[in-house]
Order: sequence, then C-alpha cells, then structure tokens
Amino acid sequence: MSTSPKIAVVLAGCGRADGSEVFETVTALLAIAKNGGSYQCFAPNIMQSAVVNILTGEKTNEKRSVLVEAGRICRGDIKDLKEFNVKDFDAVIFPGGLGAVTNWCNYADRGVNCEVNQDVSNTMLKCYDNGLPIGAMCIAPVVVARVLGKYGIKITIGSDEQTARAVEAMGAVNEVRQATEIAVDEKHKIVTTPAYMMAHSITEVAEGADKMVKAIMKML
Amino acid sequence: MSTSPKIAVVLAGCGRADGSEVFETVTALLAIAKNGGSYQCFAPNIMQSAVVNILTGEKTNEKRSVLVEAGRICRGDIKDLKEFNVKDFDAVIFPGGLGAVTNWCNYADRGVNCEVNQDVSNTMLKCYDNGLPIGAMCIAPVVVARVLGKYGIKITIGSDEQTARAVEAMGAVNEVRQATEIAVDEKHKIVTTPAYMMAHSITEVAEGADKMVKAIMKML
Repeated sequence: MSTSPKIAVVLAGCGRADGSEVFETVTALLAIAKNGGSYQCFAPNIMQSAVVNILTGEKTNEKRSVLVEAGRICRGDIKDLKEFNVKDFDAVIFPGGLGAVTNWCNYADRGVNCEVNQDVSNTMLKCYDNGLPIGAMCIAPVVVARVLGKYGIKITIGSDEQTARAVEAMGAVNEVRQATEIAVDEKHKIVTTPAYMMAHSITEVAEGADKMVKAIMKML
Repeated sequence: MSTSPKIAVVLAGCGRADGSEVFETVTALLAIAKNGGSYQCFAPNIMQSAVVNILTGEKTNEKRSVLVEAGRICRGDIKDLKEFNVKDFDAVIFPGGLGAVTNWCNYADRGVNCEVNQDVSNTMLKCYDNGLPIGAMCIAPVVVARVLGKYGIKITIGSDEQTARAVEAMGAVNEVRQATEIAVDEKHKIVTTPAYMMAHSITEVAEGADKMVKAIMKML
C-alpha cells in the first residue's frame, strides 16, 4: 500500500431520499482518514432528478444542483466529477443513498436497462481500466453492476431479491452479506458493503465502511 | 451511568454554511451509539434565516425549513424541538455549524446581545434546571453562553479571541482547547469541544466528539 492512499469519493447529492446517504458518506470519509488515507469528494455537475422532502417522502417543486447539495456533506470541499483524473488517485468509493439510482442513473425509473450519467460511467471505466480498486455501498453497487457487470464482477447489495435479480441481469454476481460485512472481488478489485440495504444502526454502517476501506487499501 | 443513555441532539439545518456542520453532527451521533447510548435528533420548526450556496458562500433566494433540511443528515428521523420532553432524555448535545448562530439565534448579526429562538433556549434551560448534562461543539457553545452564561459556566470555543470576548461578555468563561480536547464544567454539567473552530481534519473532530460524549456519559 502507498504511504497515504488518495481516494476519490463520488457523491450524488445530500440525504438518503434524493442524494447520498449522509451516514454512509461520512463514515466512509472517516474510515479513509482513520486508516491513513486522504480523500477528495466529487459529484456530477447536474441538476437533481427530483428534490424530496425527507420527512414526508414527497417530491417538491424545487430545483437543486447535485454538486452544490453534495457539497453540504463535505464542508464545500468538492469538485465537478468532470475534473476527476485517474492519475491523481489510488482508489474510488461510491456511497449509497437513492441519489445513486436517481441522479447518477435512472435505475429507479428504468430498472435493469437504465442509462448512467457519462461522468459517472467514465469514472468507473477509467478506474477499472487502470486497476484502481472501486468501493461501493448500499444501492450504489447497482450502478457499478450496470457499468462493469459485463466483466462478471462480484458485488453485494445485501439480500434484497429484486435488486439481486437486477444486478445479476446486468451480468454481476450478488453475494449476500450483512451490514457489517463486505464482498471482495479480488480479480476485478471491487469491494462492496450493504450499509443501509441491511443496516439497523450507524455503528453497523461505520463497521462496514471501515472494512471496505481497509480491504481497498490492502489491494494497493 | 444508566444502562443506555438517551441523548437528544439538536440540529440547525444541513451543512456548515447555513445549518449544522455535518461531520460534527455525524461523529457525535456515531460516538453516542459506539459508547452504548441512543439518540433522537430535533430541530426548531422554523425557516432558515438564509440559504447559502456552500461552494460559493453566497446567499441564494431560496427558502428552506431548518427542520426538513436538518432531517437530511439523520435519514429523516428528526422531531420538532417543540416536542422535546426533558423527562425522556439523559443529556442533550448541540453540534456546531453556522446555523447555530444564524438559525438558533442571531448572534452572527447582533453579537453579544443576540436573541435566541425560544424552543432552543427552553430546551437548554429545562436541561440545566433538571441536571441534564449539555454538550456543545464548535460555535454552538456561544448559544449556550447566551442562555446560561449568567450562571458563570465554563466552556471552550477554542482560541478565537473575538468569540472568546463575546462569550465572556455573556458571563461565561472560555477555556482554550485544541480540537481533540474538551472543556468540562463539572459544576454546571457542560461539556464542550472546539471541533471546526480549531480542527484540521475529520479525525480530530471525531476524537473531540468521542471525548465529549464519554465525559457526558460519565456525569450520568
């Protein structure tokens, strides 16, 4: 492992209902820092597909930027994903939250045949082609499966049967895991953890995030 | 200490520029859970005094609810601060972020003679009167000083001289601390940590939050 691994963390907005899940994101960033790495957050510079009132679950009429709202999680220290340069990083992590399947792609509407935002798919493909480990949490492995499923990658989205069938239709293999566990695909350098697909507490999410980050760092 | 301390965590919106600082909030929630406690988030059900683009620092024309936006940090599991009942909790924590001095009160505009939102001041007063420990991070101790300074409480807001003079004008004593340290006022049961008044990293904030939570639990 390099002395201080640099990890890009790609976000999808702010909050579980229409962006990146905040506990997953922050526990991943904390795990990177605690394990001796550094991080830089990124998000696609696009408008959210919807703005959802997280208390009621209802869509509002507001228009918000994925990049600006994602910046709320990380003190505004975030870059447009178009600026991501694979040569500057050792690994990349995609936390979960519904924004992963509504802003990065339209899986929530279209299912298996969803289209992925080009900056997100380019980032995943460049990391894969250059041998950088890819981490993903919660529902985010669905997007990884959509982009890299053709290589027969192994991931976990927990035990949800409908989601498992979807990622398998994309060519990926789903391995059932608990929230505090990870699925490690050594061959394709992909590490995933179910987070809030399975978790009942922030401590479970933090444990899964920490194991994911340690497994990624071990691959470097 | 009771077997599983119940801690209320009061929020001021989402994000450092116009709400609650997210790393401070999440590391406090994680520290509560890791140390065997449980938490319930609250926020005043009011509109934000401003909505700030966290990337540019500029105010926008948007109108957002403190309660709804704060809910983004904690998966929507948040209650109107009017519903806070001191009998249901063992302690209360106020994370920082500029929303503490723009939404909970108008210190950012008015300084020492600021007015505090009644639900926020009632919560602090009821906790104090009933002997519940009060925790506060970053700039939030200023609001505690405004409400409880008359009792000669000891707090830390780090080493910023202007802020230190303000809390001392409110009757509080400022003790200089580093980000990974806490100030403990045993007599008044107040525990504070400078967080991003002093911190350079999420790990420093997490260490301060963990020490604050442990000191609070020791008082129970």
